[in-house]
Amino acid sequence: MNASEFRRRGKEMVDYVANYMEGIEGRQVYPDVEPGYLRPLIPAAAPQEPDTFEDIINDVEKIIMPGVTHWHSPYFFAYFPTASSYPAMLADMLCGAIGCIGFSWAASPACTELETVMMDWLGKMLELPKAFLNEKAGEGGGVIQGSASEATLVALLAARTKVIHRLQAASPELTQAAIMEKLVAYSSDQAHSSVERAGLIGGVKLKAIPSDGNFAMRASALQEALERDKAAGLIPFFMVATLGTTTCCSFDNLLEVGPICNKEDMWLHVDAAYAGSAFICPEFRHLLNGVEFADSFNFNPHKWLLVNFDCSAMWVKKRTDLTGAFRLDPTYLKHSHQDSGLITDYRHWQIPLGRRFRSLKMWFVFRMYGVKGLQAYIRKHVLLSHEFESLVRQDPRFEICVEVILGLVCFRLKGSNKVNEALLQRINSAKKIHLVPCHLRDKFVLRFAICSRTVESAHVQRAWEHIKELAADVLRAERE
Amino acid sequence: MNASEFRRRGKEMVDYVANYMEGIEGRQVYPDVEPGYLRPLIPAAAPQEPDTFEDIINDVEKIIMPGVTHWHSPYFFAYFPTASSYPAMLADMLCGAIGCIGFSWAASPACTELETVMMDWLGKMLELPKAFLNEKAGEGGGVIQGSASEATLVALLAARTKVIHRLQAASPELTQAAIMEKLVAYSSDQAHSSVERAGLIGGVKLKAIPSDGNFAMRASALQEALERDKAAGLIPFFMVATLGTTTCCSFDNLLEVGPICNKEDMWLHVDAAYAGSAFICPEFRHLLNGVEFADSFNFNPHKWLLVNFDCSAMWVKKRTDLTGAFRLDPTYLKHSHQDSGLITDYRHWQIPLGRRFRSLKMWFVFRMYGVKGLQAYIRKHVLLSHEFESLVRQDPRFEICVEVILGLVCFRLKGSNKVNEALLQRINSAKKIHLVPCHLRDKFVLRFAICSRTVESAHVQRAWEHIKELAADVLRAERE
Repeated sequence: MNASEFRRRGKEMVDYVANYMEGIEGRQVYPDVEPGYLRPLIPAAAPQEPDTFEDIINDVEKIIMPGVTHWHSPYFFAYFPTASSYPAMLADMLCGAIGCIGFSWAASPACTELETVMMDWLGKMLELPKAFLNEKAGEGGGVIQGSASEATLVALLAARTKVIHRLQAASPELTQAAIMEKLVAYSSDQAHSSVERAGLIGGVKLKAIPSDGNFAMRASALQEALERDKAAGLIPFFMVATLGTTTCCSFDNLLEVGPICNKEDMWLHVDAAYAGSAFICPEFRHLLNGVEFADSFNFNPHKWLLVNFDCSAMWVKKRTDLTGAFRLDPTYLKHSHQDSGLITDYRHWQIPLGRRFRSLKMWFVFRMYGVKGLQAYIRKHVLLSHEFESLVRQDPRFEICVEVILGLVCFRLKGSNKVNEALLQRINSAKKIHLVPCHLRDKFVLRFAICSRTVESAHVQRAWEHIKELAADVLRAERE
Repeated sequence: MNASEFRRRGKEMVDYVANYMEGIEGRQVYPDVEPGYLRPLIPAAAPQEPDTFEDIINDVEKIIMPGVTHWHSPYFFAYFPTASSYPAMLADMLCGAIGCIGFSWAASPACTELETVMMDWLGKMLELPKAFLNEKAGEGGGVIQGSASEATLVALLAARTKVIHRLQAASPELTQAAIMEKLVAYSSDQAHSSVERAGLIGGVKLKAIPSDGNFAMRASALQEALERDKAAGLIPFFMVATLGTTTCCSFDNLLEVGPICNKEDMWLHVDAAYAGSAFICPEFRHLLNGVEFADSFNFNPHKWLLVNFDCSAMWVKKRTDLTGAFRLDPTYLKHSHQDSGLITDYRHWQIPLGRRFRSLKMWFVFRMYGVKGLQAYIRKHVLLSHEFESLVRQDPRFEICVEVILGLVCFRLKGSNKVNEALLQRINSAKKIHLVPCHLRDKFVLRFAICSRTVESAHVQRAWEHIKELAADVLRAERE
């Protein structure tokens, strides 16, 4: 395919994409296919001779779309939102064309420098403490990671390196293995599974601090664990506090937990993967209070800030903590500017070596929405979740399980887990809307997350009418 | 921006991209900017009100392009190629629109199933042993990772989990830390820095096996290291063999090293990040002989197979080895099919949780080029590198440093490192072409990698004329 055919096919694809987005409400949100549906539909091996573009685009509708879960349907209320916006898609086209691999400053200076500045822009939108910004040639700065899981892992590895160096400086006879055996990381029992996984990868213990009645980590439970573990000879070194948990969007008490981490010389990583986007609104910024105690902070603009996946924003107060954990400099990656102190080689900040020009997406989205447009978007979602909450509250058969703070409503039928499991099964079998559940303590709970960029009050109301009907069926079936 | 504005702006962007690709030869391959160039050119904070698309696209030319290293210029001969093709760009547009996060089968069945089948297609193109394919519901299968670094890390972590389980099954009193202290991984002294990094992250020792005169790992050096380490009480558990090293595209001797790994019960991971794409040509397939001894194999279609970054293809013989290292199942990610054995939840195969619909790029590229088109592309690059090699060999002032097997030529002026460093500096200051160096033992060597999709014989010849002129200058300056 040459440039002139790309001009033609690219424009056809732009129309296909626009048609898909405009028509998405008419597609069933969750597919009908069974596992293994796709393989029989396509050849067993790649063709020797080229297929035509027409063949392929026809197959998209015939083979791919029937198996797609439509995350951007206004009837998708599952998991958490994943961002989608036209400006981000335009930027991704440009990113694909430039196609640089920005592992070092020299590999494409614009790729590194725009990222540094965009992370400052975003940090300012959140009113992050200045220590996290790069702007004044301070010690902090931001980086785009692929996902919050990677950010947590990178933070844990940096913390691990730091504590090992500190302890070995004091007691040179200590081996790395002897230290690692005693290291212990913490998170609340509501933290995302990726925190447990980071502990597994890093080869350190991870302990879950019991959360309180609001599913928040508090000082008392943390203190108790620390005292117990220190008495047992363990070395607390790392804490992940979550703002907006995946299960129920609860918030760890950062103002309580932060000072303890600082006092105990533990690295504090704050994971606000979903909720972080909301902090650009002054009325939600208080939820971030206490971030000043953190060593690293992360949230996902690719969830709720209209920047398509992947774009996970991570800041650290001391960038040498990250680079110290990873820095390796083979000759083929050295370049003349790298020791100047002025520049950033992002390969030292992350797990992979390669990286795309992802900051273009931030630049396009921030500029084409403006801060006010982004705030309006967040507010609309929060309004819709409260609308759903009030619908649920008006129905005495249902209960709200956790305070609704942002765009997630955790609710259930008053009664057994069995009846709620039956309700969820009916909802997801009917496929008019799509939800996923969670467990809160022993309770099976339904999660209603405002997700789509195009979801409106009418969709929420229709979803609720549908849920009520299915609930009536479930309750009737139970009585019979 | 609504769909109708996207139709307009998307088509303008398609033209911008086509213009960029068509005109790339006219742009200086390496930018003139100095570190810190970008920040003064843009505002210190995001705008409150939206900017227009015109403003942004004008700024791309004014602010971004002057700082871009043009990886797809036919005068870019640095690092290794990074793939770029129009079919992949079209697929990426579709991927962005669908915008699903395919961490589980249920999260978008098509995303998982197309990936599984595309990995089989690609495995068959390479004539991978059937044990690596998913097709016949065997124990193996493929997954798209973000980068070869991640594939190496994932393999190391799986190997670590496996050896710990095995040793603890035999001796339940052994702690994880006691085992990890003794674990040792190996690679050749020519392996990529990401291998060393995987060892750092995994918290295990990594030893470099001295390579032979052709920069290849051989049986004798490995045997020696194994005997020494086992005598010292260490536990060899993991080997990364490289096919096509980053420094000089040398090949470890898999037919020698593989059987030793199998005999010693060490996990063998084969990293063919760059070279792997060439194995789709029958005349290069012999370079992959010995992969039958491997537990995992990885290469990057995003380097040399026309599938834009990121798309790193990894296969394992036993997928439960990977999933065993990572499997965690919170309620919000469970779904009704997950225990059926028929389906794949790719989140258990990788470090991040989220993942894009990257197999669309493979599907578009494989179909629009056909296997023959892809083979022709590889062959053209190999031909061009041999053309450059023969130009170098005709000039008695120069020497070829390593046998040229694929698309990389390692060469230097006969003489001191200083004169070669001076030559490279002149080349990269002149900015007509772009190269990076490597060290081979004590020698400073220039790497000439055939990179661009559009590079032709004329570009290679012009590059050589330019290098010769600068070499003459350097040699003259040295004599003076």
